[in-house]
Amino acid sequence: MSKRKLILDVDTGTDDAVAIMCAALHPHLDLIACTSVNGNVEVQYCTNNTLRALEFVGRGDIPVYEGLSSPLARPDFPVPRAIKFDNGVHGRELPIPNTTLRKQETGAVDFLIETYRNATDEIVLMPVGPLSNIAAAVAVFPKLVDYVPEVIIMGGAHHKGNVTPQAEFNIWADPEGAAKVFAAGFKKVTLLPLDATHKALVSNERSRKLEALGTTAGLAASRFIDQRIRAYDDNQPMEERNACPVHDALCVNFMLDPSVVTTLFRHVDVECHGTLTVGRTVVDTHYRNLKDPNCHVAFGADREKFCEFLESTLALGPKVS
Amino acid sequence: MSKRKLILDVDTGTDDAVAIMCAALHPHLDLIACTSVNGNVEVQYCTNNTLRALEFVGRGDIPVYEGLSSPLARPDFPVPRAIKFDNGVHGRELPIPNTTLRKQETGAVDFLIETYRNATDEIVLMPVGPLSNIAAAVAVFPKLVDYVPEVIIMGGAHHKGNVTPQAEFNIWADPEGAAKVFAAGFKKVTLLPLDATHKALVSNERSRKLEALGTTAGLAASRFIDQRIRAYDDNQPMEERNACPVHDALCVNFMLDPSVVTTLFRHVDVECHGTLTVGRTVVDTHYRNLKDPNCHVAFGADREKFCEFLESTLALGPKVS
Amino acid sequence: MSKRKLILDVDTGTDDAVAIMCAALHPHLDLIACTSVNGNVEVQYCTNNTLRALEFVGRGDIPVYEGLSSPLARPDFPVPRAIKFDNGVHGRELPIPNTTLRKQETGAVDFLIETYRNATDEIVLMPVGPLSNIAAAVAVFPKLVDYVPEVIIMGGAHHKGNVTPQAEFNIWADPEGAAKVFAAGFKKVTLLPLDATHKALVSNERSRKLEALGTTAGLAASRFIDQRIRAYDDNQPMEERNACPVHDALCVNFMLDPSVVTTLFRHVDVECHGTLTVGRTVVDTHYRNLKDPNCHVAFGADREKFCEFLESTLALGPKVS
Amino acid sequence: MSKRKLILDVDTGTDDAVAIMCAALHPHLDLIACTSVNGNVEVQYCTNNTLRALEFVGRGDIPVYEGLSSPLARPDFPVPRAIKFDNGVHGRELPIPNTTLRKQETGAVDFLIETYRNATDEIVLMPVGPLSNIAAAVAVFPKLVDYVPEVIIMGGAHHKGNVTPQAEFNIWADPEGAAKVFAAGFKKVTLLPLDATHKALVSNERSRKLEALGTTAGLAASRFIDQRIRAYDDNQPMEERNACPVHDALCVNFMLDPSVVTTLFRHVDVECHGTLTVGRTVVDTHYRNLKDPNCHVAFGADREKFCEFLESTLALGPKVS
Repeated sequence: MSKRKLILDVDTGTDDAVAIMCAALHPHLDLIACTSVNGNVEVQYCTNNTLRALEFVGRGDIPVYEGLSSPLARPDFPVPRAIKFDNGVHGRELPIPNTTLRKQETGAVDFLIETYRNATDEIVLMPVGPLSNIAAAVAVFPKLVDYVPEVIIMGGAHHKGNVTPQAEFNIWADPEGAAKVFAAGFKKVTLLPLDATHKALVSNERSRKLEALGTTAGLAASRFIDQRIRAYDDNQPMEERNACPVHDALCVNFMLDPSVVTTLFRHVDVECHGTLTVGRTVVDTHYRNLKDPNCHVAFGADREKFCEFLESTLALGPKVS
Repeated sequence: MSKRKLILDVDTGTDDAVAIMCAALHPHLDLIACTSVNGNVEVQYCTNNTLRALEFVGRGDIPVYEGLSSPLARPDFPVPRAIKFDNGVHGRELPIPNTTLRKQETGAVDFLIETYRNATDEIVLMPVGPLSNIAAAVAVFPKLVDYVPEVIIMGGAHHKGNVTPQAEFNIWADPEGAAKVFAAGFKKVTLLPLDATHKALVSNERSRKLEALGTTAGLAASRFIDQRIRAYDDNQPMEERNACPVHDALCVNFMLDPSVVTTLFRHVDVECHGTLTVGRTVVDTHYRNLKDPNCHVAFGADREKFCEFLESTLALGPKVS
Repeated sequence: MSKRKLILDVDTGTDDAVAIMCAALHPHLDLIACTSVNGNVEVQYCTNNTLRALEFVGRGDIPVYEGLSSPLARPDFPVPRAIKFDNGVHGRELPIPNTTLRKQETGAVDFLIETYRNATDEIVLMPVGPLSNIAAAVAVFPKLVDYVPEVIIMGGAHHKGNVTPQAEFNIWADPEGAAKVFAAGFKKVTLLPLDATHKALVSNERSRKLEALGTTAGLAASRFIDQRIRAYDDNQPMEERNACPVHDALCVNFMLDPSVVTTLFRHVDVECHGTLTVGRTVVDTHYRNLKDPNCHVAFGADREKFCEFLESTLALGPKVS
Repeated sequence: MSKRKLILDVDTGTDDAVAIMCAALHPHLDLIACTSVNGNVEVQYCTNNTLRALEFVGRGDIPVYEGLSSPLARPDFPVPRAIKFDNGVHGRELPIPNTTLRKQETGAVDFLIETYRNATDEIVLMPVGPLSNIAAAVAVFPKLVDYVPEVIIMGGAHHKGNVTPQAEFNIWADPEGAAKVFAAGFKKVTLLPLDATHKALVSNERSRKLEALGTTAGLAASRFIDQRIRAYDDNQPMEERNACPVHDALCVNFMLDPSVVTTLFRHVDVECHGTLTVGRTVVDTHYRNLKDPNCHVAFGADREKFCEFLESTLALGPKVS
């Protein structure tokens, strides 16, 4: 079986890190590059975290391209960014790699445009942070949509937001960028919102299984997940305690096994102007407007499948010495 | 058992008519007046329809006060109003009453303010149309909130809207008015949104039962419900075919039996500024903002209880001659 | 010559006070009532200030009706109100009247509706504060527009705002209310924005003339104007130092002598949704939209005429003892 | 005297064409390139028009880089674009050049970033169309602001708009892009809004002088200006008939002679959310907010100087054969 190519666009973040490790290690995937974007932390930290996550699982060969340091249109987010993943990777919990970590000279937007323009194979585009890089690439090179066979996005929320009652962080952090991507005319777009990722919870028990795998990937993932569980239990409890979503990694799983989520094909747009709803993904679930569907939206997820995917994938790569 | 007093604020509307008949006939309720408001049809038709519905069930003694002919702040709704209930009542389906129908001289806002200011008993306020009258009364007489023991509102939607993907008609039709009411500081507010009313469907079979009651109320209700079922099946199918919600009547049922719905006590506000989300009820289901709960929001409903309520209540009043 | 009737709607305010005194004293005017509205200070202070201003010039016979304590739609203004006129009247500068000051029982909105509905003479409506009372009256009784022969409004700004770069206080303080009034369909509306009032400055020298009139009105006006000059020089300098606008009084002058300002007949609307421009009066000076003119907008003013008007009018009434 | 370098960012447009010819011909300017952007016409026509204008005055050597085909964030403008310059150049009025016209392979955004990153001389950036290219370049490469010594923008309006009562076309056509540019932190930004360009009118008489110059530039400019005068007289009359603004060319004049306009250093932002004011440049003329000035805004212009500049500059280049 030939490997399927993908580019991961990340604002690394603990769940981005798990997604990166899965994509870098899975035998059926060829992660040709990561691009970083302003989001969970400032873009330079996202870049660095991405480099570390790759290095930690023995895939320092995968290039990382740094992208936008702000949303497409807005100067910045309205609130301070709370998640301090950077400490998690090189601080207390995980060793600092000996090697020098280096991002590429070329910027993410240029890389995306040039790569797709010259691609001979199909390369899935998987943005799991704010959509600023993708939107900028579309603005500069609108034909990009003809070169990308599939876009798999982590973001949005229908039933409940996380950063506000109505909005999920990735979309809220760059509403104009997200709106541009949904309206751009990509051939196939799948959105994995909180409605799906919150149904694929990883429990503390499953995290113990990851730790026990004996791999650096398993170890790192379990530490990230433990940290996430504490944070969710404290600030944003899920329906089940001692469990957390690992949003971005579900996208990697979905690329390999679409059956891990159930989707509806609907029209999706983003509210850019509301005062209470800014950054909300507006999913026309019941055809109440006259716009054609443009996105497959995941509303359900198979938790067991996802946990098994994590366990089998994170078992790969270097062993903990 | 003493009767509980209420005022119904209506934009009559087929489901308003069923609510009116239930409130007018139920032995435990004392419907002291109806107030009409611009909504499903223009306010003068709402007034007339309300008068007819009362007359038809032998309660022409209940006074009707006409209210606002436009939203609180906006000149009007952006779209034409589709539901032509007026024809339904005096046209093909139901006989035109012989008596002269007369609204009161006093306007609805003045009536509300004076009635509550002078009330010695508790009077529940039950608005089941756009909230323009209530908002105007609060604007003119802010202390109204201290005189109203309970407000039961039909409106809003969390999971899916009806007039747009995000918004339910009553709230969308006067977003500023609705926002004012939720922020006004009423002692107790319960909201029955589509999330509840869509779970209390009345099927064609149950409509046959109403028809068979042999009362004018049962006959009228069954005709209205038949018409609603056709419209829903054509334009906005429910999860089950041959069934429809009867939104406003669920509020009357709730007043008598709160167990007919399940509620969450949450903060509710209304988006007045979004382009895709205007008129959306923003329910903070998971405490993602820092605002105190101000509303009991119904998310579930007991369909069987509701149908039984309709059957027992609409069995009262005059028999079909 | 018969006196022309008017109702002054005020948020008193030092310039409102000068307007009240002029309207109460001028031999050609019959100020049949004042209505107060939330604005420069909270409505109860506006009411009290209005009563004092009338009493101080011997017109305690003119009734004062208290109006809205908040904007039509919004819960309140976004910023604290800086102008503390209340101290100015009963504090340091002017004596507290011995008589008991009493507002009317009836509220301002009811008073307006009832008065106009029953009027046999023409009564000019002159709102010089936020337009909340007028908007609420229009909402409750839309036919009001047929009973009011002329509306003279102080508010708005085209070239420069005062409360923000784009907006003047009265309109900004209730944008939805103002929008409703401009769209209501009144027969004749004249708007005196900052573009006019800033051209009718009263200098310190002219204030000395008012002081020297020997009347309570002249004394009060000169003290208010002196206070205004200090505030403008400190916070919002006019093109000339030692001079200030007395916005609201220009409306009274305009009613008696339209030639004191020069106007253009144009379409006026109010921005209710912008983030930088909320509360801006949108005057279509050069016919760039397709909407019919609805308002005479004053862009120039005759300063000398205005000063002479103040001097001759404030010379009337009781002498300083 | 060494020539000053500039890049003209254009949506050509008749007044863009005059600006291009002036910049290409003036002996003290080195027009190193033009970049085109979606605006008056679709970007491919802007590009072609730019190539033709350069060729027509013998400067086919100046490269043209094509830029964005849409606003930065929005899918497109809300209204059809009325100005059909394309016909003006290759149609009835001016000959079609024999040579093949070729835009560069590189896109405008890449060209801008690479050029500034590698510049050893100072290059003025002069955008006279919608700010989409500049905003995209800033989004992709925020450090651009450190490499650009000066930005001279044609756009915006304070006293009156052209496309709406409140907004000028260039800013209105990409409000988010414009807002991004004003907030980007460029070292020096000068804005020439309609408030300046409408004061530098070119009359029919002066157009005759240009025609009489005997140069291709003079001929083309006079034809464009004649066409503009007709259009302005029909649709948007200036204070003087038989005269029109030539907005973009005033920027070229300003670069050579700043005294042609009078400016105020103020804070400028752009309204992106209003319904009546979207695309308005919000100039804080009187320091009513607390934001630092970021832009020199021209409010006056010296009409005679400008006309003389056009006459002397357009006298250069090839003679009409």
